Amino acid sequence: MYEHYSYERLTQFTKDIFLFMGCSTADAEIATKVLLSADVRGIDSHGVARLAGYIRLWEAGRINATPDIRVVHETPSTAVVDGDAGLGLVVAPFAMQVAIDKAKNVGTGWVSVRNSNHFGIAGYHAMMALEHDMIGMAMTNASALVAPTFSIERMLGTNPIAVAIPASEQPPFVADFATTTAANGKLEIQQRKNEDVPIGWVQDKEGNDSTDAHALKHGGLMLPLGSDREHGSHKGYALGSIVDIFSAVLSGASYGPWAPPFPAYVPMPENMPGKGLGHFFGAMRVDAFRPAEDFKSHMDNWISRFRASTPAPGHENVLIPGDPERVMEAIRMKDGIPIPESLVHELNEIGKKFGVGL
Amino acid sequence: MYEHYSYERLTQFTKDIFLFMGCSTADAEIATKVLLSADVRGIDSHGVARLAGYIRLWEAGRINATPDIRVVHETPSTAVVDGDAGLGLVVAPFAMQVAIDKAKNVGTGWVSVRNSNHFGIAGYHAMMALEHDMIGMAMTNASALVAPTFSIERMLGTNPIAVAIPASEQPPFVADFATTTAANGKLEIQQRKNEDVPIGWVQDKEGNDSTDAHALKHGGLMLPLGSDREHGSHKGYALGSIVDIFSAVLSGASYGPWAPPFPAYVPMPENMPGKGLGHFFGAMRVDAFRPAEDFKSHMDNWISRFRASTPAPGHENVLIPGDPERVMEAIRMKDGIPIPESLVHELNEIGKKFGVGL
Repeated sequence: MYEHYSYERLTQFTKDIFLFMGCSTADAEIATKVLLSADVRGIDSHGVARLAGYIRLWEAGRINATPDIRVVHETPSTAVVDGDAGLGLVVAPFAMQVAIDKAKNVGTGWVSVRNSNHFGIAGYHAMMALEHDMIGMAMTNASALVAPTFSIERMLGTNPIAVAIPASEQPPFVADFATTTAANGKLEIQQRKNEDVPIGWVQDKEGNDSTDAHALKHGGLMLPLGSDREHGSHKGYALGSIVDIFSAVLSGASYGPWAPPFPAYVPMPENMPGKGLGHFFGAMRVDAFRPAEDFKSHMDNWISRFRASTPAPGHENVLIPGDPERVMEAIRMKDGIPIPESLVHELNEIGKKFGVGL
Repeated sequence: MYEHYSYERLTQFTKDIFLFMGCSTADAEIATKVLLSADVRGIDSHGVARLAGYIRLWEAGRINATPDIRVVHETPSTAVVDGDAGLGLVVAPFAMQVAIDKAKNVGTGWVSVRNSNHFGIAGYHAMMALEHDMIGMAMTNASALVAPTFSIERMLGTNPIAVAIPASEQPPFVADFATTTAANGKLEIQQRKNEDVPIGWVQDKEGNDSTDAHALKHGGLMLPLGSDREHGSHKGYALGSIVDIFSAVLSGASYGPWAPPFPAYVPMPENMPGKGLGHFFGAMRVDAFRPAEDFKSHMDNWISRFRASTPAPGHENVLIPGDPERVMEAIRMKDGIPIPESLVHELNEIGKKFGVGL
């Protein structure tokens, strides 16, 4: 069912595709690195599986392969970046670097981005801060698939939040999660297996509970983290809203139900109130609060204490956010990245079309 | 079952209690305002119902009524505040004001606080930013009652997050929520009514699902937002952890299972890695990103579009975070604040003890 490809082989292929689209070498390299960080970390929905989607957006004229990405407004600790309709995979690292540079100067940096596109996994961008002894944050709005609590209309994307926090001896704390009960990628896994999903992930278009992994194709809705009011879905709805507002209302991107859809065949919403997709990035120097060595040794203590907390019956140990992805990365860099047959076929078709060998 | 007290009457009583404890007039006034903002907004667990708890902490020598609250470290956009074991109700507005002042200068301000105590409702502090056309954020760690995903040990508090965002014609967006499936106050309501709670709010001490509203008294655990792994509890666990780290590891407060317990009869944890409880505050000038009028008119558009989204069957309309509390505030400022008989009795006992009339 799967073929294994090395990181290097997928890198060469993906980079050649971005070069074919007209990206500069530097842009093709960073876009490839960001995209493949998903495959390597086990977030299969956001890696090469999305390459065809990016190509279709480029073919539809919605992605500019040679964007003029620039800061359009700033203060010592903030900036707004206009992505000029570039690949989010390129715009996002640019904007996160602006946040990091501002943090170097005044302690923290906060950058809201408009006129961008899908930026890969949020965790990649947040983790850029780690090597600078900074806490990194990244979030983005996305195509509307999620109904607010008490609503049956698609108003929000799965709007992920990533937070990366450095430690010393311990690996960093890296949280990266959709503000829905289940990420879209989890739905896709069940779709491929033709299996049901648990109650609480989706509803049908009338707002009834559903276990249909294909519910979205029939007009259904994703549910905010918490699933229903009794279990706190108003909190997931608030979190998704905060991501939308920080990413798009602060920057002048298109928000809520007007967020540009990722599938190129879906028409753009009418009367969009802003430009493209929005992101939000933050960087905080830990030594803007206390000496970096103090902070990182207390993070070591925090992490080891939580990892040693009493496990529930049937579990060997308690995980720290980022543990599963780090374990996966070690395995896949060694053994290669498993690509399902259907995706191998799709990538080969792309390769043929653009004269690029997989 | 309830007696109604006017805001003014509860204000006078509460202020007199804080004055009796030795607070300065200014501190007694701000502590009262913060505490009663919970009663007024309908968050009954965090208002005068907690007064007895604060008094017991003061009697136990854990609250300093005349603290020397000060900035101990800073950069242009950040600060660490030491609360000198003062009332969180006083320390928190001080620290939030530091964040606001920094935002005036460099666009944003971020303040982590150590050596504090319970700070009332997070929403009050976040909302301080609104009149300055800033986005406000507030969070705090708290006594450990919550088990991480896959654990049966109490490692985190209910660690709330509040975010307040200004609009123009529309009322502001104000989210204020515990990072658990249900806030502790929700449990207390079911305890008073002697009614069960839904599956997903708590577990017994062995990690079994429980509907016992009194589960915590028997060694049980609160569950992170999401309730179980399948419904995203690892996301609630990550959120509660981020609040703990920003509030306590950044500042040098006591974190995780070492957070000082609110009930004065619970002994302090051994080997505490920091001082007191921790908070984290943020303020972002909206015009550090785009002109304030642009931002606020787009927030009006955001809010009215979400409020008009198609309601689910059985619901009249979709709510914006902050709507229920604002409606409650209007009612209670007019009709008075309903206090349950048992609490009236408790407040009268306090009044007698301190020679203060309710």
